[in-house]
Amino acid sequence: MKDLPLAKVYQLLEPGPVVLLATASGGRVNVMTMSWHMMVDFEPPLIACIVSTGDYSFAALCKTKECVIAIPSVDVADLVVKIGNCSGRDVDKFSEFAIASKKAEQVAAPLLPQCFANLECRVVETRLVDKYNLFVLEVVKAWIEPKQKNAKTIHHRGYGTFVVDGEVIKLKSRMR
Amino acid sequence: MKDLPLAKVYQLLEPGPVVLLATASGGRVNVMTMSWHMMVDFEPPLIACIVSTGDYSFAALCKTKECVIAIPSVDVADLVVKIGNCSGRDVDKFSEFAIASKKAEQVAAPLLPQCFANLECRVVETRLVDKYNLFVLEVVKAWIEPKQKNAKTIHHRGYGTFVVDGEVIKLKSRMR
Repeated sequence: MKDLPLAKVYQLLEPGPVVLLATASGGRVNVMTMSWHMMVDFEPPLIACIVSTGDYSFAALCKTKECVIAIPSVDVADLVVKIGNCSGRDVDKFSEFAIASKKAEQVAAPLLPQCFANLECRVVETRLVDKYNLFVLEVVKAWIEPKQKNAKTIHHRGYGTFVVDGEVIKLKSRMR
Repeated sequence: MKDLPLAKVYQLLEPGPVVLLATASGGRVNVMTMSWHMMVDFEPPLIACIVSTGDYSFAALCKTKECVIAIPSVDVADLVVKIGNCSGRDVDKFSEFAIASKKAEQVAAPLLPQCFANLECRVVETRLVDKYNLFVLEVVKAWIEPKQKNAKTIHHRGYGTFVVDGEVIKLKSRMR
């Protein structure tokens, strides 16, 4: 994986892919699937996301204020669903599903090299956690896998239905 | 357009489509494009979104605390880009681009019948507006156009590059 400039992070998350969120707390790593996230600012990249009190990752995220957001392509969609179908409360998902991991540079949570992009994040805003489980994260380091340049992401439509990225079109937009 | 049960709204927004946001304030309607949004809760459906102080819609949203989020398919991608390329400060977009509109049921902002789904929304949370331009909306009424059942949405990747919905796959997910 190579460095991705922080100014380009929004281009990965703005299209709304299903992502994985990895945490490490008290010697225990965990990973969950997540579709409720959005960009909040370009640079430094800020991301809002919902991690619910029902998610086993909630406590680790609150305690460590760190996580990794990893973006899987459709090639690992089966793994993504397995990760989403169980809780870290009951299963060591890394061991159960033989998930590869790699030491991150700035956070304790692991990078997931099976994903084509990995974003090391710190929690910077918690005012809306109590009422909405809404965290704002700052991406402090971003990684991209050049070998997966044309990775197709997946987008959840509910109850196991996913839309895979299709045609790429270019329009005369003046928007960044 | 027919009623969409509020419990199904997340299935439209969770996949991360480019949307339009319409407002009406002081007899003036306006519409902007938006990709920075996410689901916050299932039912009632809560949506977080970023509407920046630089957007002409910001003042109308703050003042009226109402808007319509409309979801366009790729068939109207050119219109979406035109809407995004200019500001309501300079142009009456509805007149300039001959955008169709229809009276909403619960908010003053107009429905956009050229879009296959329309969500009438009220602002319910503004604590993060000052620092992040982050609004939380509640969907109070949702509409779907049954004639566009297999509408393909578009997802922005920056600088006019859009990914169109591709293949739909079904995986054995236990996730709602």
